[in-house]
Amino acid sequence: EVEDLVDELHPADMADLLESVTREDRALLLDIVGPTLDPEVLTYLDSALRDEVAEKLGPKETAAILKRLESDDALEFFEDLSEELRVQVLARVPVTIRRLLQEGLEYPEDSAGRLMQREVVVVPAIWTVGETIDYMRQHKKQMPQDFYDLYVVDPRYKPIGKLPLSRVLRNKRPVKIVDIMQQELNPVPVGLDQEEVAYLFKQYSLLSAPVVDPAGRLVGVITVDDVVHVVEEEAEDDLLKMGGVSETDLYSAVLQTTRSRFTWLVVNLGTAVLASSVIGLFESTISKVVALAVLMPIVASMGGNAGTQTVTVAVRALALKELTGKAAWRFVWREVMVGVANGLLFAVLVGLVAWAWFDQPLIGVVIAAAMVINLLSAGLFGTIIPLALEKLGADPAVASTVFLTTVTDVVGFFAFLGLAALILF
Amino acid sequence: EVEDLVDELHPADMADLLESVTREDRALLLDIVGPTLDPEVLTYLDSALRDEVAEKLGPKETAAILKRLESDDALEFFEDLSEELRVQVLARVPVTIRRLLQEGLEYPEDSAGRLMQREVVVVPAIWTVGETIDYMRQHKKQMPQDFYDLYVVDPRYKPIGKLPLSRVLRNKRPVKIVDIMQQELNPVPVGLDQEEVAYLFKQYSLLSAPVVDPAGRLVGVITVDDVVHVVEEEAEDDLLKMGGVSETDLYSAVLQTTRSRFTWLVVNLGTAVLASSVIGLFESTISKVVALAVLMPIVASMGGNAGTQTVTVAVRALALKELTGKAAWRFVWREVMVGVANGLLFAVLVGLVAWAWFDQPLIGVVIAAAMVINLLSAGLFGTIIPLALEKLGADPAVASTVFLTTVTDVVGFFAFLGLAALILF
Ligand SMILES: [Mg+2]
Ligand SMILES: [Mg+2]
Ligand SMILES: [Mg+2]
Ligand SMILES: [Mg+2]
Ligand SMILES: [Mg+2]
Ligand SMILES: [Mg+2]
Ligand SMILES: [Mg+2]
Ligand SMILES: [Mg+2]
Ligand SMILES: [Mg+2]
Ligand SMILES: [Mg+2]
Ligand SMILES: [Mg+2]
Ligand SMILES: [Mg+2]
Ligand SMILES: [Mg+2]
Repeated sequence: EVEDLVDELHPADMADLLESVTREDRALLLDIVGPTLDPEVLTYLDSALRDEVAEKLGPKETAAILKRLESDDALEFFEDLSEELRVQVLARVPVTIRRLLQEGLEYPEDSAGRLMQREVVVVPAIWTVGETIDYMRQHKKQMPQDFYDLYVVDPRYKPIGKLPLSRVLRNKRPVKIVDIMQQELNPVPVGLDQEEVAYLFKQYSLLSAPVVDPAGRLVGVITVDDVVHVVEEEAEDDLLKMGGVSETDLYSAVLQTTRSRFTWLVVNLGTAVLASSVIGLFESTISKVVALAVLMPIVASMGGNAGTQTVTVAVRALALKELTGKAAWRFVWREVMVGVANGLLFAVLVGLVAWAWFDQPLIGVVIAAAMVINLLSAGLFGTIIPLALEKLGADPAVASTVFLTTVTDVVGFFAFLGLAALILF
Repeated sequence: EVEDLVDELHPADMADLLESVTREDRALLLDIVGPTLDPEVLTYLDSALRDEVAEKLGPKETAAILKRLESDDALEFFEDLSEELRVQVLARVPVTIRRLLQEGLEYPEDSAGRLMQREVVVVPAIWTVGETIDYMRQHKKQMPQDFYDLYVVDPRYKPIGKLPLSRVLRNKRPVKIVDIMQQELNPVPVGLDQEEVAYLFKQYSLLSAPVVDPAGRLVGVITVDDVVHVVEEEAEDDLLKMGGVSETDLYSAVLQTTRSRFTWLVVNLGTAVLASSVIGLFESTISKVVALAVLMPIVASMGGNAGTQTVTVAVRALALKELTGKAAWRFVWREVMVGVANGLLFAVLVGLVAWAWFDQPLIGVVIAAAMVINLLSAGLFGTIIPLALEKLGADPAVASTVFLTTVTDVVGFFAFLGLAALILF
């Protein structure tokens, strides 16, 4: 019964099913499905679960599955296996596949080399449409399942043109390939980071791109269906980093998750203690006017939130490479203006609230002034921090928020309590 | 000189150039380039600038550009124009294009109908490979520039198969289309939200999908190159919402940006005042032990950060539809466990720091207990809040953080100051 159900599932949905159940049920399910498991399921499976599933299937079955996958999917699956399992699996696949997998692992993680498919249909420029069609019909068996562009290479195997299949089909047999090929190629160096690859695909709306080795020879092709997942992954990456999480840990154990979150919280504890020590400087002021202790989190929190808005826009714009040259300075300037504008609006609002609450007009003045100062610095540091991190080669998504809230906490408490000490006594 | 430079730019890079300069320089640049502007540039242009550029070009030039774009790109550009300009442009395009644009606008914003291309190459199932190739050669002029899949329809124009071009090319002329077409179709209802469309493409690694009207007839096709931008947009959307920004406002004026950020900050002000009023309940306690005022932001801040980690993971998992059925409860449970685990770790850490700082062991005990309570509620509410928002049909990315930090602030201050009032006196 389970087998019937599973047979009807699309491999992607089967992968989701495996992801959504407990480890024990997963093992049970794999026992039932066993060797009838569609290899495609593994290409859709969350990478955190691949090793577990492969362990369960065993090296023989895993090798059999790898043999039936396209080269990019095979590598994507293989790279997630444990060192030990890799060795066992390699011993069980044909030498051509072994060589491709070993070569693949030599490219840096998350590089074009890891993403590319090795099966490329290549034609010489001197051929005609007719010759191309005949060639494809004769070599039907060796071709990838479905593909969309042919690549035209010179005698040294350097790509010189791209040929969307619709162009082959639209033209008569005698037409020369060189006359209908697209010369704009966007070749991707094999070591390029996948984030840059995704950028190229998005920027130029590519469907496929040739991957070239340092000598400029064609070694593979990257197709947009695989890039969709990279775009998703990289955007997710920024979202998670901004939220202080290093990776989706939905499938990790409690202990592992606790540990990975702990690091970030320790950093935050450091900044919280720093902010607290600023408050500590004004202990005597607070003991005289306890209202200050009540109101001070408002200043810090408004600064933190306004700064987070700015940082978020900055991180996005940097990912889209929109803050180059003068645009960066215009952005800083604009955010400072926005900070001052909202600072003034909230100064009035919060000033009146504080006055009414504690019936002391001067407290209203103090919090109003602190609000303007803190929202101004939120705009200034909310732009400067991510820009500086990017300039230094760090990922602005990781650390911007923690630096920013440190600044807005410290500035917020210092401005509010400092002004109170000056004005109220 | 400028003209030469611009001529060599890819339309995508030209669009970036237009985006990166000031409004005045943009006008100047458009004056120079004028009618030689590649229509493709407008498809790459940030949507916030499209109306401005079209105004500058004028209705006649804009109409000329629309005529030369493919139907999906034309609609994408047209929908961003002002009502007034739309009317002027519609009067200047041929009736067929006018009808397509008007029809397009009738589909809901961000729906499949807005995303689809109307130019679809369609063949009847009874044809052979040879007939298909001949048809394509004869109708070369009417075909879209480049395309990748043919669609097979029944006599009532319902899609019954998809045919990647590689299958046409690989097979001999007498082979029947019906024998080589792919029957798995993933038809997209014309009203489906683009976020769901993107989900389908990601989930099943699609390259194109047929769009059908309520009667099931083929009305268009969505291709993956356009979906890449949707994936990007939707992920950006979540990132921006989590950061309290409604949209990328990089190209908006200061006033407009101030206003759009203001709303979110007002909401945050409300929650900050709520948190402050909790502190207000303990004014007399604080006036007796000022150290409490110094330490209390630490408890609130740690809870806020831990909760944000949880919310971030939840928002991602919900976007990927990974929290269905039992998986949701397992997730809640796991996050609570992680919260308790990190709560205990930080209880020890912060307890010792507080003890050392103020030389009062009992203050250490109070902050330690408050830390466990607050990190537990961070885990609990960090999962419950986004799950509840999703269940209620609200977007968990928009409001989760603000609800969450309200909870962690209120619980943090209440637990810390309340325990202090109980234990210290
Ligand atoms: Mg999945
Ligand atoms: Mg793949
Ligand atoms: Mg991987
Ligand atoms: Mg990366
Ligand atoms: Mg692939
Ligand atoms: Mg990144
Ligand atoms: Mg651009
Ligand atoms: Mg742009
Ligand atoms: Mg497009
Ligand atoms: Mg639009
Ligand atoms: Mg949407
Ligand atoms: Mg398109
Ligand atoms: Mg969304």
